Amino acid sequence: MSQSAQDALKKLVDKTREISILDSCSSLLGWDERTYMPRQGADHRAEQLAFLAGLSHSRLVEPEIGDLLNTVKSSDLVNGASSDATVIVREIGRAYDRAVKMPQSLVEELTRVTTIAQGKWGEARAKSDFAAFKPWLEKVINLKKQEAEAVGYKEDPYNAMLDVYEPGATVTSIDETFTKHRVELVKLLDKIKGSGKEPDTSIITREYPVEEQKKFGHEAATAIGFDFERGRLDITTHPFCTGIGPGDTRITTRYDAHHFNGAFFGILHEAGHGIYDQGLPGDQFGSPLGEYISLGIHESQSRMWENMVGRSRAFWTYMYPKAQQHFPKALGDVSADAFHWAINDVRPSFIRVEADEATYNLHILLRFEMERAFFSGDLKVDDIPAAWNEKFKSYFGLTPKDDAQGCLQDVHWSAGLIGYFPTYALGNLYAAQFFAKADADLGGLHAQFAKGEFAPLKRWLHDNIHCHGRRYLANQLIERVTGKPLSHDALMAYMNKKFGELYGF
Amino acid sequence: MSQSAQDALKKLVDKTREISILDSCSSLLGWDERTYMPRQGADHRAEQLAFLAGLSHSRLVEPEIGDLLNTVKSSDLVNGASSDATVIVREIGRAYDRAVKMPQSLVEELTRVTTIAQGKWGEARAKSDFAAFKPWLEKVINLKKQEAEAVGYKEDPYNAMLDVYEPGATVTSIDETFTKHRVELVKLLDKIKGSGKEPDTSIITREYPVEEQKKFGHEAATAIGFDFERGRLDITTHPFCTGIGPGDTRITTRYDAHHFNGAFFGILHEAGHGIYDQGLPGDQFGSPLGEYISLGIHESQSRMWENMVGRSRAFWTYMYPKAQQHFPKALGDVSADAFHWAINDVRPSFIRVEADEATYNLHILLRFEMERAFFSGDLKVDDIPAAWNEKFKSYFGLTPKDDAQGCLQDVHWSAGLIGYFPTYALGNLYAAQFFAKADADLGGLHAQFAKGEFAPLKRWLHDNIHCHGRRYLANQLIERVTGKPLSHDALMAYMNKKFGELYGF
Repeated sequence: MSQSAQDALKKLVDKTREISILDSCSSLLGWDERTYMPRQGADHRAEQLAFLAGLSHSRLVEPEIGDLLNTVKSSDLVNGASSDATVIVREIGRAYDRAVKMPQSLVEELTRVTTIAQGKWGEARAKSDFAAFKPWLEKVINLKKQEAEAVGYKEDPYNAMLDVYEPGATVTSIDETFTKHRVELVKLLDKIKGSGKEPDTSIITREYPVEEQKKFGHEAATAIGFDFERGRLDITTHPFCTGIGPGDTRITTRYDAHHFNGAFFGILHEAGHGIYDQGLPGDQFGSPLGEYISLGIHESQSRMWENMVGRSRAFWTYMYPKAQQHFPKALGDVSADAFHWAINDVRPSFIRVEADEATYNLHILLRFEMERAFFSGDLKVDDIPAAWNEKFKSYFGLTPKDDAQGCLQDVHWSAGLIGYFPTYALGNLYAAQFFAKADADLGGLHAQFAKGEFAPLKRWLHDNIHCHGRRYLANQLIERVTGKPLSHDALMAYMNKKFGELYGF
Repeated sequence: MSQSAQDALKKLVDKTREISILDSCSSLLGWDERTYMPRQGADHRAEQLAFLAGLSHSRLVEPEIGDLLNTVKSSDLVNGASSDATVIVREIGRAYDRAVKMPQSLVEELTRVTTIAQGKWGEARAKSDFAAFKPWLEKVINLKKQEAEAVGYKEDPYNAMLDVYEPGATVTSIDETFTKHRVELVKLLDKIKGSGKEPDTSIITREYPVEEQKKFGHEAATAIGFDFERGRLDITTHPFCTGIGPGDTRITTRYDAHHFNGAFFGILHEAGHGIYDQGLPGDQFGSPLGEYISLGIHESQSRMWENMVGRSRAFWTYMYPKAQQHFPKALGDVSADAFHWAINDVRPSFIRVEADEATYNLHILLRFEMERAFFSGDLKVDDIPAAWNEKFKSYFGLTPKDDAQGCLQDVHWSAGLIGYFPTYALGNLYAAQFFAKADADLGGLHAQFAKGEFAPLKRWLHDNIHCHGRRYLANQLIERVTGKPLSHDALMAYMNKKFGELYGF
């Protein structure tokens, strides 16, 4: 083992660490922007963030990074698929290669156009005016195609989009799973609709005083294992979780005094992200060995705690008496079963972010199909609204009343986030497959939840997922942990059982 | 006017602006550290701040800055004492010269030693054990003397200390004023003591519910002109004000449910700093023309709003009915006059940060005399406690029961902040002299305060002080605005009148 390769590896990690420190400053600035920043601070904040992003980018593309990568790559440190050096070179290499291949002019044009496009999208959605957004969406798609050509891809340019959010995933690998999944989801919905049953959802829109929601949410997040010595919970408009650095992970939510679900399950969701972040090896901060794997794996953690734990009957065996104490007026006369069904109401609806557990992935699969079609050129941008509505009718049995309720509802495309949507559905699939394995390994999670024991699941997730940082790609990890490649079997089995019990089929 | 000098000036300001953006990121990180950061985030925060400070420093000492300074300096742009270019070159030049003259080894040693010394000071104060702190204080003083030699000075090495906090001030210029001031202050105290009168201070320690204190403090800060669209008020342990950038100025306080003065006058004090920060020209951010002049001038703004406005009888003519509404239990049976006297209680005491308006400067003058003596070598570090106690007895008529109550009470010296204390006293002197002029210009401020009209004073301060940024040095500004060099006349006249009325002499 040559000393100079060791030196190069250390230097590489040191340099990446400095970039990560810079980025972690941006994370705090971003958190503050969305929580406490005074209204008039926005312009200066944009300048701060742009300046730090520029510094970070210029450090990543330094030729020295390329030289160090080459030195380590050609040394005997890189041996085996998941040795430290292999992982470091693979992951830093991916980021470096992509960054140096992007022409500066394209980076700047993308920043410029997506900034304007997001504004245009906001206006267009408000007026449900797709025609006003259309030219900007065309510009964004065109630039993202240029990005794919610049950075390169195997087989399909869309893979270059996926690669940013879900490294290792390919159109081919997920398309087959998603198509099967869609067919089964539609069948599940038909069964639920066919049951002719529905819960009393008025329970959820009774009065839940915000101060009590705060306390109860804090209690629940603590119960499942979010560490408030190493984190915070604050209020924001569009909830998120952000890791500032080791010992500092922040989650956010928003409260509605007349809706229980939004804040509570939002907190469990973000706490799930937060527990992952808090479980990453802090002493590897700045190295790929201290980073999360992919958006899909991150989402699997949030969705598991939100739905598979937080919307389980067993969770409420433990939590419902506490809920009744916090909300005696709203829940005093409601049984735990009635409450549990109400928070698991399934109902096809137009808006993704309001969707229930059973319909959520259908929203995503539709977007994935749309993205692939317009990114390949098979679908003209002009034809997006009609195609959207047709698919929506076919999957959900509903027709959006306008494009605001249809293809204009999400900000993602205007922001250039193409290839991002699939990670939401992948998250649900990963979650169910991990959860089934944890359940088998730990011998009955629901019995534990009913007693308020969430630590065994948290520890299992830590030991099987969190502690590895980015050592394994998502598709490697799922197979390594569960013994099987990703499929929709676990998620469909979980949902058929759960909703079968609730809706009696 | 040569084009290349214009270019150099622009480039110089651009480069300084980038440094200021970096520093403004540190300001936000520092604010967060003292308000919301989770406990376990401290280590990573220290790394972030050290990294940003290193980046900022390395950009300031770039030889290109020196070249640009020389190009502008030798051009015809620099004409007149206060043209834009003159000011920019003078101020950036001062920072640059000092930074490049400081050996890197000395910077690092100072950081290392003051970090340890602050810890040692904390322990020593807790045990009132001067001997344990002594070797570290000696090390700090020795390093600060080396700093003075490295950066250079005129006449007295102590001037090199002052120059960081109060550019343009010199030992000679302030010593004479301070000595006269001390004599008059002791006389004032004697008169107050001799009156045999004292207010009922138990009013102040009744119950003031924290939520109401928050509302009332917010109301008062808004009334005097702190803009909450461009700022915030949060809770911290050691209150401060920090400017993040244009449109974002943050103040902090702490609450005690059984003490009215701490939070309320703390808020007015920090709001005074904040109004100055919000009044600086935002479009000049990063240039000396957008920065505050000195710590003394900054302190003049906070002390004016806290004391000359907030502790005036006229202020409470307007605010007292509101106070009674917020605190009916505590103040329902208290007259405005009794309340006003209670918040103006004068009483020699040991601790600077708890001192009233009349004794505060005496605490500072004592520290200034001590600093000068040990920095010149006239006073051995060993002899500090005895010298402190002797002076204290002479000025206040009291003897500290131990060093924790005496020379160990302040963190400043352990942190290397020598030359900082005088700016507190200068602040009070500037404040009174400005206030007297504003009162004359605006025709009776108290009548305005009694009607809740604070905007004229705020506008006067803006037009005479805030809008100039760093165009004038503090001693130039005071003369320019008031027509006289700084003296203690205005402050003594103000205090003799105010306390004469209260104590009947």
